[in-house]
Amino acid sequence: MADPRMDAFRSRLGGLAYGGDYNPEQWDRATWREDVRLMRAAGVNLVSLGIFAWVSIEPEPGRYEFDWLDEVMDLLHEGGVSVNLATPTAAPPAWLTRLHPEVVPIMEDGRPLGLGSRQHFDHSSPIYRHYAATIATRLAERYSFHPALAMWHVNNEYGPTSYSEAAAAGFRRWLRRRYHDLDTLNDAWTTRFWGQVYTEWAQIEVSNVMGVWMNPARRLDFRRFTSDALLECYLAERDILRSFRDDIPIMTNLMPCYPHADYWKWAPEQDVAALDIYPDPGHPDAHISSAFHYDMCRSLKAGRPWMVMEQAASAINSRDVNLVREPGRMRLGSLQALARGSDSVMFFQWRAARGGQERFHSAMVPHSGPDSRTFREVAGLGRELGLLAPVAGTTTRRADVAILFDWDGRWGLEDTGRLPRNDFDYTGVVLRHHRPLWEHHHPVDVVSSKSDLNPYQVLIVPNAYLIDDEGAAAVTEFAHAGGTVVMSFFSGVADECDRVRPDGYPGAFRRLIGAKIDEYWPARPGERFAVRFADGRTATASWWREDIHLETGSALATYADGPLAGRAAVVTNSYGSGRVVYLATLLEDAAFDAVVLDAVRSSGVADPFPGVPAHVECTVREDERNEHLFLLNHHPDVPVTVSLDRPGTDLLTGAPAAGEITLAPLGAAVVHRTR
Amino acid sequence: MADPRMDAFRSRLGGLAYGGDYNPEQWDRATWREDVRLMRAAGVNLVSLGIFAWVSIEPEPGRYEFDWLDEVMDLLHEGGVSVNLATPTAAPPAWLTRLHPEVVPIMEDGRPLGLGSRQHFDHSSPIYRHYAATIATRLAERYSFHPALAMWHVNNEYGPTSYSEAAAAGFRRWLRRRYHDLDTLNDAWTTRFWGQVYTEWAQIEVSNVMGVWMNPARRLDFRRFTSDALLECYLAERDILRSFRDDIPIMTNLMPCYPHADYWKWAPEQDVAALDIYPDPGHPDAHISSAFHYDMCRSLKAGRPWMVMEQAASAINSRDVNLVREPGRMRLGSLQALARGSDSVMFFQWRAARGGQERFHSAMVPHSGPDSRTFREVAGLGRELGLLAPVAGTTTRRADVAILFDWDGRWGLEDTGRLPRNDFDYTGVVLRHHRPLWEHHHPVDVVSSKSDLNPYQVLIVPNAYLIDDEGAAAVTEFAHAGGTVVMSFFSGVADECDRVRPDGYPGAFRRLIGAKIDEYWPARPGERFAVRFADGRTATASWWREDIHLETGSALATYADGPLAGRAAVVTNSYGSGRVVYLATLLEDAAFDAVVLDAVRSSGVADPFPGVPAHVECTVREDERNEHLFLLNHHPDVPVTVSLDRPGTDLLTGAPAAGEITLAPLGAAVVHRTR
Amino acid sequence: MADPRMDAFRSRLGGLAYGGDYNPEQWDRATWREDVRLMRAAGVNLVSLGIFAWVSIEPEPGRYEFDWLDEVMDLLHEGGVSVNLATPTAAPPAWLTRLHPEVVPIMEDGRPLGLGSRQHFDHSSPIYRHYAATIATRLAERYSFHPALAMWHVNNEYGPTSYSEAAAAGFRRWLRRRYHDLDTLNDAWTTRFWGQVYTEWAQIEVSNVMGVWMNPARRLDFRRFTSDALLECYLAERDILRSFRDDIPIMTNLMPCYPHADYWKWAPEQDVAALDIYPDPGHPDAHISSAFHYDMCRSLKAGRPWMVMEQAASAINSRDVNLVREPGRMRLGSLQALARGSDSVMFFQWRAARGGQERFHSAMVPHSGPDSRTFREVAGLGRELGLLAPVAGTTTRRADVAILFDWDGRWGLEDTGRLPRNDFDYTGVVLRHHRPLWEHHHPVDVVSSKSDLNPYQVLIVPNAYLIDDEGAAAVTEFAHAGGTVVMSFFSGVADECDRVRPDGYPGAFRRLIGAKIDEYWPARPGERFAVRFADGRTATASWWREDIHLETGSALATYADGPLAGRAAVVTNSYGSGRVVYLATLLEDAAFDAVVLDAVRSSGVADPFPGVPAHVECTVREDERNEHLFLLNHHPDVPVTVSLDRPGTDLLTGAPAAGEITLAPLGAAVVHRTR
Repeated sequence: MADPRMDAFRSRLGGLAYGGDYNPEQWDRATWREDVRLMRAAGVNLVSLGIFAWVSIEPEPGRYEFDWLDEVMDLLHEGGVSVNLATPTAAPPAWLTRLHPEVVPIMEDGRPLGLGSRQHFDHSSPIYRHYAATIATRLAERYSFHPALAMWHVNNEYGPTSYSEAAAAGFRRWLRRRYHDLDTLNDAWTTRFWGQVYTEWAQIEVSNVMGVWMNPARRLDFRRFTSDALLECYLAERDILRSFRDDIPIMTNLMPCYPHADYWKWAPEQDVAALDIYPDPGHPDAHISSAFHYDMCRSLKAGRPWMVMEQAASAINSRDVNLVREPGRMRLGSLQALARGSDSVMFFQWRAARGGQERFHSAMVPHSGPDSRTFREVAGLGRELGLLAPVAGTTTRRADVAILFDWDGRWGLEDTGRLPRNDFDYTGVVLRHHRPLWEHHHPVDVVSSKSDLNPYQVLIVPNAYLIDDEGAAAVTEFAHAGGTVVMSFFSGVADECDRVRPDGYPGAFRRLIGAKIDEYWPARPGERFAVRFADGRTATASWWREDIHLETGSALATYADGPLAGRAAVVTNSYGSGRVVYLATLLEDAAFDAVVLDAVRSSGVADPFPGVPAHVECTVREDERNEHLFLLNHHPDVPVTVSLDRPGTDLLTGAPAAGEITLAPLGAAVVHRTR
Repeated sequence: MADPRMDAFRSRLGGLAYGGDYNPEQWDRATWREDVRLMRAAGVNLVSLGIFAWVSIEPEPGRYEFDWLDEVMDLLHEGGVSVNLATPTAAPPAWLTRLHPEVVPIMEDGRPLGLGSRQHFDHSSPIYRHYAATIATRLAERYSFHPALAMWHVNNEYGPTSYSEAAAAGFRRWLRRRYHDLDTLNDAWTTRFWGQVYTEWAQIEVSNVMGVWMNPARRLDFRRFTSDALLECYLAERDILRSFRDDIPIMTNLMPCYPHADYWKWAPEQDVAALDIYPDPGHPDAHISSAFHYDMCRSLKAGRPWMVMEQAASAINSRDVNLVREPGRMRLGSLQALARGSDSVMFFQWRAARGGQERFHSAMVPHSGPDSRTFREVAGLGRELGLLAPVAGTTTRRADVAILFDWDGRWGLEDTGRLPRNDFDYTGVVLRHHRPLWEHHHPVDVVSSKSDLNPYQVLIVPNAYLIDDEGAAAVTEFAHAGGTVVMSFFSGVADECDRVRPDGYPGAFRRLIGAKIDEYWPARPGERFAVRFADGRTATASWWREDIHLETGSALATYADGPLAGRAAVVTNSYGSGRVVYLATLLEDAAFDAVVLDAVRSSGVADPFPGVPAHVECTVREDERNEHLFLLNHHPDVPVTVSLDRPGTDLLTGAPAAGEITLAPLGAAVVHRTR
Repeated sequence: MADPRMDAFRSRLGGLAYGGDYNPEQWDRATWREDVRLMRAAGVNLVSLGIFAWVSIEPEPGRYEFDWLDEVMDLLHEGGVSVNLATPTAAPPAWLTRLHPEVVPIMEDGRPLGLGSRQHFDHSSPIYRHYAATIATRLAERYSFHPALAMWHVNNEYGPTSYSEAAAAGFRRWLRRRYHDLDTLNDAWTTRFWGQVYTEWAQIEVSNVMGVWMNPARRLDFRRFTSDALLECYLAERDILRSFRDDIPIMTNLMPCYPHADYWKWAPEQDVAALDIYPDPGHPDAHISSAFHYDMCRSLKAGRPWMVMEQAASAINSRDVNLVREPGRMRLGSLQALARGSDSVMFFQWRAARGGQERFHSAMVPHSGPDSRTFREVAGLGRELGLLAPVAGTTTRRADVAILFDWDGRWGLEDTGRLPRNDFDYTGVVLRHHRPLWEHHHPVDVVSSKSDLNPYQVLIVPNAYLIDDEGAAAVTEFAHAGGTVVMSFFSGVADECDRVRPDGYPGAFRRLIGAKIDEYWPARPGERFAVRFADGRTATASWWREDIHLETGSALATYADGPLAGRAAVVTNSYGSGRVVYLATLLEDAAFDAVVLDAVRSSGVADPFPGVPAHVECTVREDERNEHLFLLNHHPDVPVTVSLDRPGTDLLTGAPAAGEITLAPLGAAVVHRTR
């Protein structure tokens, strides 16, 4: 997988990228100079520049002010700081929204999204697209060959949806491409139900109406369309930038599991996957969620090094209560990103704003200035990243276990509505399945149903309610070819148009799991039921049951009480050369984890770090000659000792590491060894 | 009470009606044939056809496609299934809402209700009414004399409100008819308060304004107008259908205690009262609520047999969590409807939809097909209904107790706002009063204040805050003539314009209860106070108190503590030849039930089934020669034995029933005896 | 401080004012005569007339009906009742809102506020202002010299905000006056952040847009503008009234701590400060909150006697549950207002309305008529107020302690959003600081940062997040000159444009408190931490912490656990001749009170009534020759005995008061003594 653009980028930086969003247009020239001095002191080598600078570059239609940006680019270059230069198209100027009110998106309640937020652009507005293309062109003309330029950053956290007339027209065009004729669309959307058949394309609206009971397939397609329309915006700008110079990487920053964009379709269009991540300091397991999002971002481009493009130096300010990241947490979270494949640690933002909506969002240089806990931690991390330069470009060790995350499946579960129960949280469910694997140090990749599944021994399929024929076939084939599938309840039910598959639940997977489900039995709030495993263990379950009738499958566990007593609660089935474990209820934590981990072990995948406590994260990044063992102690109070199978050098201290290595609370080691 | 249309309908069916909504337009011809085969297997003899078929019948303005409907009608007829044919006017086609956007209703927030829901028609739109009349006419022309036709089903679950310009114009016309001139209206609405006097009719709007503190009388009249406007829609279609053929019954399906329509005004316009009912499987007392709704539906047409027009075979899908109806529940609930006077058991719907908003609503033929628990229960019930054919046309035994349910009173209590407390739930209150009567097997009728009260010994009047002069006089006269009135607090306060009656609370009923109420004292959240009865019993009360000053009345119970200590909490008063018990506070359950039941017993009404446990529902349906004793054990785990006073035959088993009869958990018997 | 208008007003009434809102337009002539008779019986000497009478006076544009009002004015005058005559401009007639829909305000969601509420006028509409001026002129022409006229009442409870086009235009004019040019505005609003720079005035909208993340400085200025625009409405009417006659006092009635108007700017424009107050009978400490609002109203005009313009005789009806004021509560609350400087007790309203939105709001003459608890209490209080006539015109004893309440600071804390935590309740915070002072009988004035602080020994500064340079300098100078400042956390952070002050928190007050705050550490929900005082006492704290680095200050208390263990939790610092106590966390109640009260005592301010229980309110009103000692026992169940330092006469009983005086539960005494 040749990757000349990113190879050149890494060479240029000479290691890992470190820095943050830089908004010099908010500050005076004297501050710019202070900034560069402090960046050097902190080890910063990359900044994301100009993300919100549209109005500063183009203060009125067609008049450009580049002088200040020239000066900043030059200053950064002189200071040894490379630039990830942004097209500022996430922040259309007030003059543009005033001149062309139709460039702002229309929210679901029919009101325009006003200036004062960001992303106040309508993805489908031809006028917006025209102005965005123009400013991107101007920037490319001027800076494509500036020596500071290391990367292009298109827009920012793409969004939002729009219910405008332009969006409606775009939706209809998109539907015509997808369905060609209305008969096909009516069939796909099951519009005969409730007599909602469309007889002309123009009847399809997205406008300001109250849809108490919206057609589910229409919701689903509107989700798909929105993702595609946003992607068109990205592609248009990317292609302009590329047309000027081919060797500079181009990206946009993604959010964790953003509901508005199907990242599997976006990732191939980016030179590097990049993540903005803000773990909640108030959540004790936030680092486990982060691990998943890191795995996801790495998997989007098949394991290639990715980038943390934004994180917080300490508190953010968009929650109701915004806790600080306590001492050591930011460092450990940053090293965790590297441990799971990132080649960067970037922040929003370099210097804390004095005013505006994010004035209490922490920054590398906080309100209290360089003489502050935050800046000291930032500078300390900068020094350590310098020591970790050899890690850049290496990849994480191959995963035997993959977990499925599909946007179609997610939209089906969360957005179509009127399911047997309507409080499914797809991301939460996937995180729940990922957790025992993290606690046992298994490398895990995230896959879509279109991914190449051949490399894996185990495929985890969480609550895959909606899956298309091709995806269902891929899962089935994976088992048939010898893989182990762990699938949880309410999977395989609907096709890609959210139509319930015929011939009994679980539709696509009846033969795979070897059972027919007569009916889904959601549980009462607070209801618990007893489950007994074949080996005599018992457990409680809750939330969901299924009235399962075994065909070729057998019961790994059955209900011990209630109206379904004796029916299977966990099913196992041999299928081709492989095996399936199907969880038809929500087991209590310990039992759930045991089922997942038993299935992994039975498939022949050994624990990679047996005996290491769950709270010590262990990963390996490697290339042909070197391996870097990351050991991260997430416990805030207790040190831990880990045995090394062979000696190496801790890159963070430069000290030899052999025998046992002790990690302080929130401590870390990165042991380099040759292979 | 001659009822030739319904007599003919019963004769045609030869017993009870059994079936459901049938939407063949969603399925192919092969499925139609399978459907008829399965209907026969399940004992189905009636389907409601075409409810959402407008677009299938009239795919573009003025072009009709009847062939498919002809074929379905013929198929059903050949299969022995009669048809309740619907005017499809609850589901205007997309072409109509596109061609005439003004046919869709405007919601309270000013936005149109969009396609994707149902009932997206503006009741006051002349255009909608024109199109609805046309499609009804075309259907009547074609099918009035089709041999399958047994009944006409107009629209579906009439609603919703609308705040459109057409509605505003209709409201003004309605107000002119009611008040004739603005002086009268201003007086009725007390518009001098806050200076909101109308000086031209055109000033009266219903449009998209935020009414933080809406005039209560205006709210009330808007409720009344909406009910009347919806009723006009029904009447227009009914009269068209009737003009083609006079001997076919015509109905529309009502929901339990729907807030948008005053069923007392609707019922006389229907040939049969018909109820859609979906008891919550998660609520342990759902069957007691159902009993009330059944009593209500029966009472709407003075005790004549009514119809369950929709229920669910198992789960529905409009709740957040949709529980299945556990085995036996659907059967028992169906028999309960018969026990309380229904001549039908109908479902929504025959075959589960694959897509659309209700794809997870259960059906007689569920997603898992005929080989399923649901279909087996459906077919089993079909067989039993055949055995119960003799029940059809009989009426429930006369009730001595009536309970008042007035839409005016309900709107006054729930919608006018700014009361001493604003969390009254009128239906909940009425259900609370109905419950002890159900638990003691008393037949209960539901009455309005306009009903004939002569047949009753006891009249229950729950929280009748708003009641007009005529209604108040009827209640008073009932007591005067010897009846027993059980009235609960905050009754008789306001007149029909929501004006507080002069001369002290409780206005209309001060002489009746023999006490003046100085002030209403709602209770603090969680506050409890002690009450002592005249006979020494004590109880706690909560939620509400009144500062009562006895006049001719005497205290049945007094407060034992707090600032009202010594004041009456329950008042009794002799009035004419009758008696009143007035509950001035919310007693705890046992004490409340005792007061209600003591009053019933004191009035000379004996327990009809003494000694039978509360959870065994006992009713009698009878005609001149036969009586059918329904015994229904609602306990899910415990069997029960009931003594019979004389022998008969259990229609469900064909076995003789004498001495004692044992009912399994959720079991039932229908004992036929001659009179 | 000569105050001829109010002196004349007092002379006219011959003592305290007593009465309420009077709305004769709702009643017939016979009732008017009954009203005047009952007013005399109740000791009423003042009514507020015509507040909602616009449509009754001007039933169509330009046609006036004054006869009824003439008759009522004459009747009242004959009955010895003076009139506070209202301009009815809070209630535009239906004909006006129909004729000119643009006179109604636009709510934040874009919808007009409809008829049915009150205050349905757009403060910035030139048409509304024209009509309001006209009706005010007509009233002044006719009644300025009517013998009943004692005072003018302009509008009613001024509000609301508006987001109309007229408001937008007004906002832009206001901004031009404030900032002169867009560069200054852009800098003030920090619009470079997120690239939201305005390049033409017309780009500044207030229209119907969803502002997910609104610019905080824009929100703040919109608050200021709204207050000023409403004030312009008041001033326009006031100036018209004044132009006819100069010696009649003019006022408008204010609500407690209303968020839409900066009362510090309003008070100088009124002849008397007047308060509408509705303490919640369900809140056990409602009387302590009332004490603060009374102090506030008195302080608005530097201690001059003020007026209770509205209170409830018993229950109100705008809460979800509306409790009655239990016997004795209304009397005690009324005396409390006098105790804290009021010269009136007025009610909303005289006679309870039969219909309309407030039909269940209690009144002096309730629905149950004069033979009622309420009217008996009203008449009893009327008699007592007659006995208290000597109190009129006296002022409360000088306060040594002042507490800061700034509208800018409040809007900054509550409305700008996106703070470290977003559940600050400014009024609640100020009340919390006021409470220990009330419990120890300290006279307290409320001040703004623009007030003269010289008279005070102690200044309490609660959570003053946003304060301008001048205000910050005033606080600092107060300490420098020898005062004691008690300041609580998150103070001094932002300037008047909501920009975080540079050079580290707490910006404006870093030198004053002698410490730099590195970071704000909001607490997790439910989190508690231990605090140890220098003298060994311990306490718990919660909600908020700060990472404080002492400079010249020293720790009065430190954290005993957690990541900030050893850091200061309470700081004290000497500053100039004065001293500061800075609370950097939220201490539990007892510790919080102790810190505040210790600071007061250390400043040399002695407890004025040592030994008197906290629940006995003690105040003094005095003039050059007399003093009136108010003793109010707020305990509902327990009598209390208070020692008098010297003898006097209890005005309420006429009995001599010497030695000890015993107050019944909810009892009171007003001891007159000469100085």
